[in-house]
Amino acid sequence: MHKAGDVRIEEVPDAKLVESTDALLRVTRACICGSDLWPYKSMEPTEGGRPMGHEAIGVVEEIGAEVRTVKPGDLVVMPFAFSDGTCIFCEDGLQTECVHGGFFGNSEVGGAQAEAVRIPQADGTLYPLPTSADEALMPSLLTLSDVLGTGHHAAVVSGVGPGKKVAVVGDGAVGLCGVIAAKRLGAEQIVILGRHEDRTSLARELGATDVVAERGAEAVERVRELTDGFGAHAVLECVGLDQSTQTAIEITRPGGAVGRVGVPQDQEMPGGQASWSDNITIAGGPAPVRAYIDELLPDILDGTIEPGRVFDRTVDLDGVPDGYRAMDERQSLKVMVEP
Amino acid sequence: MHKAGDVRIEEVPDAKLVESTDALLRVTRACICGSDLWPYKSMEPTEGGRPMGHEAIGVVEEIGAEVRTVKPGDLVVMPFAFSDGTCIFCEDGLQTECVHGGFFGNSEVGGAQAEAVRIPQADGTLYPLPTSADEALMPSLLTLSDVLGTGHHAAVVSGVGPGKKVAVVGDGAVGLCGVIAAKRLGAEQIVILGRHEDRTSLARELGATDVVAERGAEAVERVRELTDGFGAHAVLECVGLDQSTQTAIEITRPGGAVGRVGVPQDQEMPGGQASWSDNITIAGGPAPVRAYIDELLPDILDGTIEPGRVFDRTVDLDGVPDGYRAMDERQSLKVMVEP
Repeated sequence: MHKAGDVRIEEVPDAKLVESTDALLRVTRACICGSDLWPYKSMEPTEGGRPMGHEAIGVVEEIGAEVRTVKPGDLVVMPFAFSDGTCIFCEDGLQTECVHGGFFGNSEVGGAQAEAVRIPQADGTLYPLPTSADEALMPSLLTLSDVLGTGHHAAVVSGVGPGKKVAVVGDGAVGLCGVIAAKRLGAEQIVILGRHEDRTSLARELGATDVVAERGAEAVERVRELTDGFGAHAVLECVGLDQSTQTAIEITRPGGAVGRVGVPQDQEMPGGQASWSDNITIAGGPAPVRAYIDELLPDILDGTIEPGRVFDRTVDLDGVPDGYRAMDERQSLKVMVEP
Repeated sequence: MHKAGDVRIEEVPDAKLVESTDALLRVTRACICGSDLWPYKSMEPTEGGRPMGHEAIGVVEEIGAEVRTVKPGDLVVMPFAFSDGTCIFCEDGLQTECVHGGFFGNSEVGGAQAEAVRIPQADGTLYPLPTSADEALMPSLLTLSDVLGTGHHAAVVSGVGPGKKVAVVGDGAVGLCGVIAAKRLGAEQIVILGRHEDRTSLARELGATDVVAERGAEAVERVRELTDGFGAHAVLECVGLDQSTQTAIEITRPGGAVGRVGVPQDQEMPGGQASWSDNITIAGGPAPVRAYIDELLPDILDGTIEPGRVFDRTVDLDGVPDGYRAMDERQSLKVMVEP
């Protein structure tokens, strides 16, 4: 990406091992993330551009001398953050806060919307998939690299569980995965807030019990009506804008929690006083998706959940610029890339 | 209080029962709260003024026809919020969000910096003290009405427990009670941030292991040095200003939590993006002190904790205006009122 609206597929030097803890991944499937649309809307022109893409499944091609847990030929999930797997944060299952970690999709590490990508801290980062994994499951398995784990994180940190009334703000891929996660964790009611009928219809198929198409104060009123007048116990904020965050707080009942996984677009958080008055907990951040694969993978393998349904378009590398355009114009929910 | 800086003791009509669920409380001890200083600094002139005071111990003088759990002559704690004790929030131990609840210290309900005060929802609100309670314990028992329970709330919602590194932002009465609560809950390290030497000295006596007198970026650096470079697991925000909230977030380690009990002075919350990036949980609000009395009372009765040490001045009703002045000018930490 060279600047807002300007995505190009270019020949660049081959990705290669740099550290002895690196692996080289040949990308078999990647995708475009809702968060990639933020720079697509607003990025200033940069010298040389920014490599994009932080979600992938691929085959290990080469490993550094110190890599122990993956070997060439392994099919692996590449979470959107790399992590050493051994620091105090990784040991607590918070790989996105790893002291030696970082994120894919930048000029230092490279991006996954490419033929290959260098994987720092390969032992801690990559998650080998079982060889039995069926080709038809690849779209769902690809969501383990970001959107499914991210929706799950929002559900976990907001305290979703059996008997809880849940609201999901945002009908993008993460919001839909939030619905899947909330259902999986036993939510009694799942209200999705979104205005795109094709997406909210899919949300219903994935487990949403109610759809609220209104915004702002009307949305708040509608959700309260649906939840005994008090609001939801757990609200998954899957957008990151001020308005969506404000709404998320306003539809949370006193003593409830908001799980924020939409990347916040502003430094300050709206509703700081309102959330205080209602004893609402605000939690969340970049999801440690690496930590969640153990729990989520079996449900994908046995077909209990089908998060791959969030993909509604597949492109090759040359189709990536058009994929951005389609997602930005809401013609596409989420675009898969097959290099 | 008639306006900022203008507190007067005035003859008003006697408090009396209004609802059949009311009780009438003769105040034996009340106090001035740090939160009373916010209107003392900024209140616009109002017709008739605002009755002040939301913390008290007293003797029940009269009860309405439906009151069952207290009787005339009972010595009771009056929490700063009244609550029915039966709604879904009260049953969850969140009496400050009671659907029939509210707060003392306003023209509707009256205030406790007075000879007597009407107690709505007396059954749910008042907590009878054991008759054995020694006179010398009254200052400590009075803190059950607000500051001790509030410090405890900050500690509970920020996840203080054995082995945790804790920081307390603010050396007022709530901050000092936060230190007591953190020690009581088993914190391994308790860093207090404050600039008043008499208060931080008291904090050390109450359990603080370290004192940080710096502010802003210097305070953040100093706390990180004291906590392995990562910050505290749990941070108790006991001030409510933007700067203190920002500092609280910055001294919290990734994956940690801030317990906010300082009344936020702004609608937006600073550090909304920073807390997200570090997966920091922001929790807290008006403390359900009524819920915490069961747990905290025994430790006061047996002398394990001495929260009454936060009082450093006692006045009669006529001394209340000077009490405000003394607290506002930081000549006094917390003023007890004996009507």
